[in-house]
Amino acid sequence: MASEFESVTAVRAMGGGRYEAEIAAGWDIGGNANGGYVLAIAARAMAAEVGRPPLTVTAHYLAPAPAGPCEVDVEVHRSGRRTATIGASLRQGDRTLVQVLGTFADPAPSGVDLADGSPPDLPPYESCVRASTAEPGFVPPIQDRLDARLRPGDAGFRTGSPTGRAEIAGWFALGDRGPIDAIGLLLAADAFPPAVFNSGLPVAWVPTLELTVHVRALPAPGPLACTFRTRFAADGLLEEDGEMWDADGRLVAQSRQLALMPRG
Amino acid sequence: MASEFESVTAVRAMGGGRYEAEIAAGWDIGGNANGGYVLAIAARAMAAEVGRPPLTVTAHYLAPAPAGPCEVDVEVHRSGRRTATIGASLRQGDRTLVQVLGTFADPAPSGVDLADGSPPDLPPYESCVRASTAEPGFVPPIQDRLDARLRPGDAGFRTGSPTGRAEIAGWFALGDRGPIDAIGLLLAADAFPPAVFNSGLPVAWVPTLELTVHVRALPAPGPLACTFRTRFAADGLLEEDGEMWDADGRLVAQSRQLALMPRG
Repeated sequence: MASEFESVTAVRAMGGGRYEAEIAAGWDIGGNANGGYVLAIAARAMAAEVGRPPLTVTAHYLAPAPAGPCEVDVEVHRSGRRTATIGASLRQGDRTLVQVLGTFADPAPSGVDLADGSPPDLPPYESCVRASTAEPGFVPPIQDRLDARLRPGDAGFRTGSPTGRAEIAGWFALGDRGPIDAIGLLLAADAFPPAVFNSGLPVAWVPTLELTVHVRALPAPGPLACTFRTRFAADGLLEEDGEMWDADGRLVAQSRQLALMPRG
Repeated sequence: MASEFESVTAVRAMGGGRYEAEIAAGWDIGGNANGGYVLAIAARAMAAEVGRPPLTVTAHYLAPAPAGPCEVDVEVHRSGRRTATIGASLRQGDRTLVQVLGTFADPAPSGVDLADGSPPDLPPYESCVRASTAEPGFVPPIQDRLDARLRPGDAGFRTGSPTGRAEIAGWFALGDRGPIDAIGLLLAADAFPPAVFNSGLPVAWVPTLELTVHVRALPAPGPLACTFRTRFAADGLLEEDGEMWDADGRLVAQSRQLALMPRG
């Protein structure tokens, strides 16, 4: 049986590189579907077209994505022995919402040569703060589809007690505890509240311009330990870097996004 | 008068989003043009099409790029009030060498809100090691077009004395000391030897699969202080993160690439 995440990212091949899909209700922030979620829909179509999972994908967000039917047009730029490079446009009618460029490849596990970094030091999943309900203040609907847990203290920005450092760590899991595949990692990369909310800067929202995710390994079963951090905010722009680690302590994805930071 | 870098990245508009250009000889590593250099050619065409400089660009490298004529086909996905999102294919004949997706926008300086990081601690430019000549061992031809200078010690990998840490820092300058514009930052992001060469791992070459550059500000005149670092190498893949700082101590670009690491 398909997990909820598989269902809400399912695509139907129409031929000629065209796929139909549905942006599900409830995966949004104020009526605009989460960026990682719509990227996941596009990536499902891209993966279906070449029969391989994503290795590195970049999404540029052109317009807000309301719930409803959408189409993904996939263009294969090159399909080689090991990798395939593909573009995709996710559209509603004439309106392109997301433009994606990615290279897709089957994983080729051969061992870790260098690991200068480690998972965040988190209390057990059950001791962390449920992102969707534990704190008052605005909670985006998408947090009810997930079961992400924040490090104690890292949700304090919701009650006017930011940590003072632009970092948020916690566990990522799907609401139905469904498996997290390579495409689930794209969702995980954009599923936490913006790290800058803990900086203390007056920031109300942080729309993503561009999101790049590198899939470094397929996760072992279980929640992912994640850290998101913003180091530089200037001229109305910030980057946010993410790391996702699986239950075996292995780095499974890195992400970076460039987002707008309208002055609060 | 055009600087050498402007000349070797010049594009001629042919109409309909098509541009002609030339991959110049001498900007290569073993006959394959440098990834930042070919990205710069594509970005010139993209910038010309929308009249704005790059803000965030991602290049996927599909095939080696020998010197010679090339074409860039630019497709504008959306051109709005502030930003334009554009795709481009750089081709030689039927062969796509580089596929690019970018968002272009004029800078909107409004001040620094958060800066958790600082330029690398480097000796003055003149005291650093000329990347092209100071050390024996293989030096890619492109280093003769630049005047990059490495932090003393960081070139030791060429003589069998890597630092043991996958990091390389130094100054970036063009060979003729021409100005570094937003497109020059794309070159700077890929102009240093791979940081992993200092790790001590047996790595002979590191072909780039994907390179993303965020232009965070237009540089003040003068060489750029740069740091490149690899933290994770596993399963034949590594990431390399770069930071570029201008003479005023301002972060002007961040880069990340995903590269193959064939076992040495």
